[in-house]
Amino acid sequence: MAMQPTAILLVSCPDQKGLVAQISEFLFQNNGNIIHADNHIDAETGLFLMRVEWELDGFRIPREEIAARFAPLAERLKMQSASGELPGNISLVISNHADLQSVPERFGIPFHVFPIHPENKREQEQKELALLEKNHIDLVVLARYMQVLGPEFARAYPNRIINIHHSFLPAFIGSRPYHQAYDRGVKLIGATSHYVTEQLDDGPIIEQDIVRISHRDSVDDLIRKGRDLERVVLARAVHLHLGFRVLPCGRKTAIFD
Amino acid sequence: MAMQPTAILLVSCPDQKGLVAQISEFLFQNNGNIIHADNHIDAETGLFLMRVEWELDGFRIPREEIAARFAPLAERLKMQSASGELPGNISLVISNHADLQSVPERFGIPFHVFPIHPENKREQEQKELALLEKNHIDLVVLARYMQVLGPEFARAYPNRIINIHHSFLPAFIGSRPYHQAYDRGVKLIGATSHYVTEQLDDGPIIEQDIVRISHRDSVDDLIRKGRDLERVVLARAVHLHLGFRVLPCGRKTAIFD
Amino acid sequence: MAMQPTAILLVSCPDQKGLVAQISEFLFQNNGNIIHADNHIDAETGLFLMRVEWELDGFRIPREEIAARFAPLAERLKMQSASGELPGNISLVISNHADLQSVPERFGIPFHVFPIHPENKREQEQKELALLEKNHIDLVVLARYMQVLGPEFARAYPNRIINIHHSFLPAFIGSRPYHQAYDRGVKLIGATSHYVTEQLDDGPIIEQDIVRISHRDSVDDLIRKGRDLERVVLARAVHLHLGFRVLPCGRKTAIFD
Amino acid sequence: MAMQPTAILLVSCPDQKGLVAQISEFLFQNNGNIIHADNHIDAETGLFLMRVEWELDGFRIPREEIAARFAPLAERLKMQSASGELPGNISLVISNHADLQSVPERFGIPFHVFPIHPENKREQEQKELALLEKNHIDLVVLARYMQVLGPEFARAYPNRIINIHHSFLPAFIGSRPYHQAYDRGVKLIGATSHYVTEQLDDGPIIEQDIVRISHRDSVDDLIRKGRDLERVVLARAVHLHLGFRVLPCGRKTAIFD
Repeated sequence: MAMQPTAILLVSCPDQKGLVAQISEFLFQNNGNIIHADNHIDAETGLFLMRVEWELDGFRIPREEIAARFAPLAERLKMQSASGELPGNISLVISNHADLQSVPERFGIPFHVFPIHPENKREQEQKELALLEKNHIDLVVLARYMQVLGPEFARAYPNRIINIHHSFLPAFIGSRPYHQAYDRGVKLIGATSHYVTEQLDDGPIIEQDIVRISHRDSVDDLIRKGRDLERVVLARAVHLHLGFRVLPCGRKTAIFD
Repeated sequence: MAMQPTAILLVSCPDQKGLVAQISEFLFQNNGNIIHADNHIDAETGLFLMRVEWELDGFRIPREEIAARFAPLAERLKMQSASGELPGNISLVISNHADLQSVPERFGIPFHVFPIHPENKREQEQKELALLEKNHIDLVVLARYMQVLGPEFARAYPNRIINIHHSFLPAFIGSRPYHQAYDRGVKLIGATSHYVTEQLDDGPIIEQDIVRISHRDSVDDLIRKGRDLERVVLARAVHLHLGFRVLPCGRKTAIFD
Repeated sequence: MAMQPTAILLVSCPDQKGLVAQISEFLFQNNGNIIHADNHIDAETGLFLMRVEWELDGFRIPREEIAARFAPLAERLKMQSASGELPGNISLVISNHADLQSVPERFGIPFHVFPIHPENKREQEQKELALLEKNHIDLVVLARYMQVLGPEFARAYPNRIINIHHSFLPAFIGSRPYHQAYDRGVKLIGATSHYVTEQLDDGPIIEQDIVRISHRDSVDDLIRKGRDLERVVLARAVHLHLGFRVLPCGRKTAIFD
Repeated sequence: MAMQPTAILLVSCPDQKGLVAQISEFLFQNNGNIIHADNHIDAETGLFLMRVEWELDGFRIPREEIAARFAPLAERLKMQSASGELPGNISLVISNHADLQSVPERFGIPFHVFPIHPENKREQEQKELALLEKNHIDLVVLARYMQVLGPEFARAYPNRIINIHHSFLPAFIGSRPYHQAYDRGVKLIGATSHYVTEQLDDGPIIEQDIVRISHRDSVDDLIRKGRDLERVVLARAVHLHLGFRVLPCGRKTAIFD
């Protein structure tokens, strides 16, 4: 089963009549075969959200010119659009501890340590941002990065930093959510992957899931059971993002899966 | 939050370039505002499947003429299409036992008893079919109807008879699935709603879900836990069907939810 | 599969050596066959929690004398214990609206209306309590009873009032949790059944579950999807309570299922 | 929260009166504090199944003498019992391909390759068994080991070989379960961890779970979504086994979690 190369267009604009018709007409006129289109109108914001994927094989516009050729239509419709292709590579790993240095290195991935203390936090984050920029990083994944990012960092990658929080947000915001869950005596624990904003654990949610627990589970059991869950929920969110399946819309996301 | 009246079009046809463009252009030319469109190409059959929903308010074609005005395009594209509006009413209840007669009657719903034995089965089913036809029934729901429908019945309502089977199909086909599940020692039990075909428990699946069980659960416990699950899974399937969200495609369904 | 009559003992006392031995010895000496025993020590409170169920057939102590005969051991071990038999009947329905009067009456269940306004709340609750007492009610189930119970009511039935809250507590405490969930853009919605305490939505949790939603779901869709979930979660909690499977322990519950 | 050393006893014997009393009395007489005991009577086989865990601190029998001192009681009650302590180490990895040799070696775990063809299978499995015996292996985990074990191998480690099958057994037994699931059009896919017996995919089930899929998912998507699920379900099964929480009982398991 060979995969055909495809292009994906993510569109967000004020709703108006004829949007689907104009976008699909544009692709049809250029001999593009749509293999999947999905759209939605957000009732709160009145925004039209669309994801359309078509075959590049036979498409009359060369890959590198698609954005430019689509621009006039996008401007007329006041669209914000993004297009791209799959998938990603892990370019580098940043940590504020050297402990796990050997793991990424075993897989040939550069590892950078930026120890962070309250006093040097802003300064270190500036260095991290410089490193990310230099490496043309598109997506930052916070995997058990137990520091709250400063506002400048969050603003530098809007909807491009994915965090995993080990609770069913908005329950148990902040630190030690498994301890909070244990204290409250819940019967399920959750994990939430979301884009990072300046406000702690408050960004648009991409994916959530839960696992059942019981009174027999200690905090350590919750941590162990949650660990598997966190991995799966984070992996799903990264996969959705890389597949251009997440369209942020205000405080929320539309997921075209 | 007042609901605007909407129309829904379900389309299934051989895939070809420009389908989305032509269908959305048709709606746009008639001043129809698409509020949700979703399509999919089935890799096995090469069929293009689409569900599109638009506002009737301001649409230039009167409701009763939509089918006729869409027909030329449908014919040209070799489409099978269906359109309609929500939702349904419960017109009547058929049973082969009189036991629960009082329940539908409490809610003012006519109740008909057709006792079925191996000898009179075909004959009774013919009478049932006549009753359904006379009442212009669109959808038949088998809720714990513990008889296997004859082939003529199944053929009379293709993709319009929904059954609930109390297992995670295709595991535990046939009778006494909870006993089968108990004997096998599974850790989850399931329920499956599907369209009825001539082959037992083999029709296109609409919805499935599961509930966790343990070694402590007796067959009676499985039956009790499964009962809630069956209701929920059947209700979801009926809701999807009535919302024109189920597009059968060969042995399978596409669910546009 | 005929059911043997069984007795159930729920025990809660300070942990000390030999508790399981002494309790099981007591039953063994009286020819009781344990068919299920389960215990747990709560790490926070140091309480020993146990549920033991044994066959009454052949047990040497007559049913009505069990409590008295067990009392000396219970006193010595500083136990709080409860014993009883399954299951319950619905004795009466109380509402503050007359709208659904016909439904319980169809099933022959007495229906009482106590209209509640801010001014008469305390007074009406006193009348409700008198009615409950007169009918020897053991368990009160709040099914969509959209009033916050006053502290006197909550105190009158400690761990014997079960509420269903339509969110994954502690997320979305208070009113309109589905609207809160919609606004936050969560990907799962939940339901929580819990014992009622004087503090709103804060009592010991008995059971929770979730259902997946998407950006396409309106608040009305959340309400519909949640409705099925609420029923199932509430039914499970009531079943657990009636089966003497819930052992409250401070702010939490141990569930012996 | 420091962990106290504990001992665990797993018991399986014909049901008879006084079992819990005698076992707990034995522990009490030796000053053992039970922190968790759970038992169950299997209705089909009439077997009494019990897991009891107690603190070693203050227990009067030295750790290495526990089995011998418990033996007379076990013999009298016709018990099969096992006791032990947590947790395990990964001693070695066996594969029939050299491809992933570098991964275990990165973590310092010996890697052995036994290429298997239909002609040499029995012979190679004998060598594998010899290697396992030499290393005093207690538990064999088949993680994507795509060979059916021969009957001699399965017999050598009864209830000590855990396999992960990538379907919701007993649905989709045998090869290519994801392809089977795709062909059937199911709405959920599953994974099942079970002990290996001589009959393919038929051994006692330890743990199962599922993940939701849709018509949009290709076979490749099922494989990707299932991969995370398989890992989690296998990890849970191994954790349950190592914690002496799995008590096999005929074709089934009791899970004391």
